[in-house]
Amino acid sequence: MKWVEIDTHARKWIKEAGERIKESFVTPLDIQVKSHPNDFVTNIDKETERFFIEKIRKKFPGHRILGEEGYGNRLNDLDGIVWIIDPIDGTTNFIHQRRNFAVSIGIYENGIGKMGFIYDVMNNELFHAAKGQGAFLNGRALERLERVRVSEAIIGLNAAWILANRRFDATILRDLVRDVRGTRSYGSAAIEIASVCAGRLDAYLSLRLSPWDIAAGLVLLGEVGGIASNLRGEPLSLLQQNTVIFSKPGLYEDVFRDYLQEGRW
Amino acid sequence: MKWVEIDTHARKWIKEAGERIKESFVTPLDIQVKSHPNDFVTNIDKETERFFIEKIRKKFPGHRILGEEGYGNRLNDLDGIVWIIDPIDGTTNFIHQRRNFAVSIGIYENGIGKMGFIYDVMNNELFHAAKGQGAFLNGRALERLERVRVSEAIIGLNAAWILANRRFDATILRDLVRDVRGTRSYGSAAIEIASVCAGRLDAYLSLRLSPWDIAAGLVLLGEVGGIASNLRGEPLSLLQQNTVIFSKPGLYEDVFRDYLQEGRW
Repeated sequence: MKWVEIDTHARKWIKEAGERIKESFVTPLDIQVKSHPNDFVTNIDKETERFFIEKIRKKFPGHRILGEEGYGNRLNDLDGIVWIIDPIDGTTNFIHQRRNFAVSIGIYENGIGKMGFIYDVMNNELFHAAKGQGAFLNGRALERLERVRVSEAIIGLNAAWILANRRFDATILRDLVRDVRGTRSYGSAAIEIASVCAGRLDAYLSLRLSPWDIAAGLVLLGEVGGIASNLRGEPLSLLQQNTVIFSKPGLYEDVFRDYLQEGRW
Repeated sequence: MKWVEIDTHARKWIKEAGERIKESFVTPLDIQVKSHPNDFVTNIDKETERFFIEKIRKKFPGHRILGEEGYGNRLNDLDGIVWIIDPIDGTTNFIHQRRNFAVSIGIYENGIGKMGFIYDVMNNELFHAAKGQGAFLNGRALERLERVRVSEAIIGLNAAWILANRRFDATILRDLVRDVRGTRSYGSAAIEIASVCAGRLDAYLSLRLSPWDIAAGLVLLGEVGGIASNLRGEPLSLLQQNTVIFSKPGLYEDVFRDYLQEGRW
């Protein structure tokens, strides 16, 4: 019963947050720079996070909250029930396009992903999943992901990740880009991961994502038979940044065998 | 009066084609490979092109037609009124995602772009423009594009174009990718060009586009004050393939001054 109640409220709050975000478009954004010149936060990111925190603290006072904008708790572990929240994933799209951003919320219990919600606000697409109960898009069940080969794959990968960089040998990812059917980049990790879960993309790779970028997507992906890890093949951490691959089966194993194998990087 | 009639019919046919495409989703696609293993055509691309050709020939028998799938006329010039048609731009998206594809139609008179239509079928967004009369999205006027700087720009650019290739020195585009605020890739040139016209992207670059990929977008872009050329700064040809940049003003000049200047390639 506890999880039914959490699910009911999470959905209601997410839709309400979406309405508030849409209403905010009539007033100019207050935009600030965070860690580097292209890392932005707006008053709406902050207000949306505070909106969720206020609701959760009132309704579920024992739960802890990890939020991108830092208004939640400082966490060194995932004990108990933890809401991991990105109030606006794809803030640059939010600022530039007023579309292609998402609210992303993963709910974990003692480190186990129990529920995931990704809400593409402007396209009115709510992806949700509950552990063991499947994944859904606007209430319609998502199909189990089928195996696909590298040569037939469309992957989500930003061009910036195949520039020379200090995180990863770009030539390895260039080989992959050369061999796949195509690449796409939408500018919101949550939407890109949801796209993998819905079969619109076959995999999604990134060299730097935070826990709130992936927490919801991990629950969704598990429910459709996809595989996620960092680019070393290790489990993703929800307490620090990660390189990531979210993938259909088959493709995942092939990418590790032919591109990401140990010794190449 | 002639152009009002053309406009009325073009819109009606485009919406009707969109409905037919959506209805086609209930039956499996017949997919064929064209020039290379990742260049596809489906029965729906072909049927949609034939649908337009039949309508145009009946209503406007004097007009000529250049269509991607080759059912129109073979053209060596743009004399008279010419419809330049991509029945489904983004065929790979159409096959993989059943979304993020567009019908794209440019109508030219003696080589001058008179009308442009880009219809993102699944998002129900019809971009249209008439020369000298502005550009519109679902009937609402698009704003004139404002100047933007490289460091603030979000550009449409596929990761594949910054791999080493025989068309263009990839290191030049890598420098640009490094310096812009971000890149996106949607997998449909028509949608990416429409995104520039709507201010969602600041520029779009590609190393290989055909006349039907750009004919509509050129008319749209001109009506919002954008600039287009090939990557040598020369006018785009509607009789052969091109490298392309579609851009906001300011950004266009900066990209040519700092990245694409002669002598570097």
